[in-house]
Amino acid sequence: MSLVVIGTVAFDAIETPFGKTDKIVGGAATYASLAASYFCDKVKIVAVVGDDFPESEIADFGNHGIDTEGLQIKQGEKSFFWSGRYHEDMNSRDTLVTELNVLADFDPVIPENYQDCRYLMLGNLTPQVQQTVISRLRQRPRLIVLDTMNFWMDVALTDLLDTLKMIDVLTINDAEARQLSGEYSLVKAAQKILKMGPKYLIIKKGEHGALLFGEGKIFSAPALPLEEVFDPTGAGDTFAGGFIGYMAKVSTVNFQNMRNAIIYGSALASFCVEKFGPEKLKKLSQAEIADRVQQFVSLAQFEIS
Amino acid sequence: MSLVVIGTVAFDAIETPFGKTDKIVGGAATYASLAASYFCDKVKIVAVVGDDFPESEIADFGNHGIDTEGLQIKQGEKSFFWSGRYHEDMNSRDTLVTELNVLADFDPVIPENYQDCRYLMLGNLTPQVQQTVISRLRQRPRLIVLDTMNFWMDVALTDLLDTLKMIDVLTINDAEARQLSGEYSLVKAAQKILKMGPKYLIIKKGEHGALLFGEGKIFSAPALPLEEVFDPTGAGDTFAGGFIGYMAKVSTVNFQNMRNAIIYGSALASFCVEKFGPEKLKKLSQAEIADRVQQFVSLAQFEIS
Repeated sequence: MSLVVIGTVAFDAIETPFGKTDKIVGGAATYASLAASYFCDKVKIVAVVGDDFPESEIADFGNHGIDTEGLQIKQGEKSFFWSGRYHEDMNSRDTLVTELNVLADFDPVIPENYQDCRYLMLGNLTPQVQQTVISRLRQRPRLIVLDTMNFWMDVALTDLLDTLKMIDVLTINDAEARQLSGEYSLVKAAQKILKMGPKYLIIKKGEHGALLFGEGKIFSAPALPLEEVFDPTGAGDTFAGGFIGYMAKVSTVNFQNMRNAIIYGSALASFCVEKFGPEKLKKLSQAEIADRVQQFVSLAQFEIS
Repeated sequence: MSLVVIGTVAFDAIETPFGKTDKIVGGAATYASLAASYFCDKVKIVAVVGDDFPESEIADFGNHGIDTEGLQIKQGEKSFFWSGRYHEDMNSRDTLVTELNVLADFDPVIPENYQDCRYLMLGNLTPQVQQTVISRLRQRPRLIVLDTMNFWMDVALTDLLDTLKMIDVLTINDAEARQLSGEYSLVKAAQKILKMGPKYLIIKKGEHGALLFGEGKIFSAPALPLEEVFDPTGAGDTFAGGFIGYMAKVSTVNFQNMRNAIIYGSALASFCVEKFGPEKLKKLSQAEIADRVQQFVSLAQFEIS
């Protein structure tokens, strides 16, 4: 019984008000699989890189117990590359460079040993590729989580709407929920989006936390107020990976478990933003995670009798 | 032992995407005292109006058990008037008209029977007038809450900084916390502001809830996700009034009680925005409030062992 993560494994070059990086490792599947690996010991990755991708980084996945049999390495080709610059508020950013490279004709391969997939994380990618992965799994996973972004709403809305019919949980940010639904009120947006297919909707609000909608209920999760957000890249992927990793660990899909999964996902994301790239995510201890989760508990608790 | 509320009692004319009003009753002290009256039966108001202010509205205060001995009525003068138009997002607005009228030379009078004040709500007003009220109370109240806005940071910063040294709790929004501190991170902003005088800081984030800082702790309160925000006017004042009203009711000043006070204040504010002006606030039942507070409990609760 495994958790399969599909998404980009790539290079990023990031500028924030705190500094800039050369090409460092990034990508939705990188962040999500590392985050999930703290909760689930059978994380398996589906992605594609070029032969420029360092073997040491692939070894790092292995060190986290992440199966990379589904990570294709294209000889003579280059890995996906994204470069961006964050604004002062760290909530908005400009894309400086996007080089699709190997991603241009990515045909996801599902190794036979991935067919035990029960939890499927569809990281941000072309909706068409996300759909292909679902169709290549012989058994429908117990839980399919899909992360996407405004870009696909702009250029591949029909494919995205088709894909939404096949999944259980959609994670998007507040601006994207408004774009997808055409509603400003997030409550109305959620009502519309839940009619598009997903049974649950998570609206990510960055420094304002997250909202979970489903089963006629709403859960509002806080974000940990941080002194400094160093680099927000990958925070959403980390959140989603932590979320589905925790769901795989507790292995019962319901609203109550999803509340906790959101807290664990948020805790992982709060580590992610403390350093450039996935560095911090590679070196966490269970004690650090438990301590961070307790900070969320004290942050949010009140007792009204 | 009473709760004294100082602020504007005034006329507003409001435009939102849902409609517009003629002159209706508004003002910080109106909203705050009505909100507080649901928790405390000794709410006393200090404010000034012109002789254009309807007697029926003053009677409405009385119907809520609010003492209006400190409400001066200036014969031959007009009440403060504000007119504004909210943008589509309901978070930003343009001021169309501001007529100070009686407010231009407001000299607050503290009736003798207000000298039992133990809880003091300094609603949004000139910092100099807020200070005057503190100085005219012979006994320092147990809890002084001050609400202010960016306007006073722009035009009366020195007075505001002096006033901050005399209070216990400051309530401002996130943009104002950033302006007052010069820090983008709200954690750093809070650290700086807590050095300016107040022991507690509440940062109001509208649809994203509120943060309480103090005693080295942070509490993150959710906002109730609403299908429609009809008119946000007075929501911050209502929040502050509900907050201090609850504190007067429980009558022990500590962080734990303040957590609950924020939830009660948020619940009252969530009613306020459902109609134009303070209409909704005038007709609440204790059962409605208890039910709304329970919605906050279900919204925010999670259990991690």
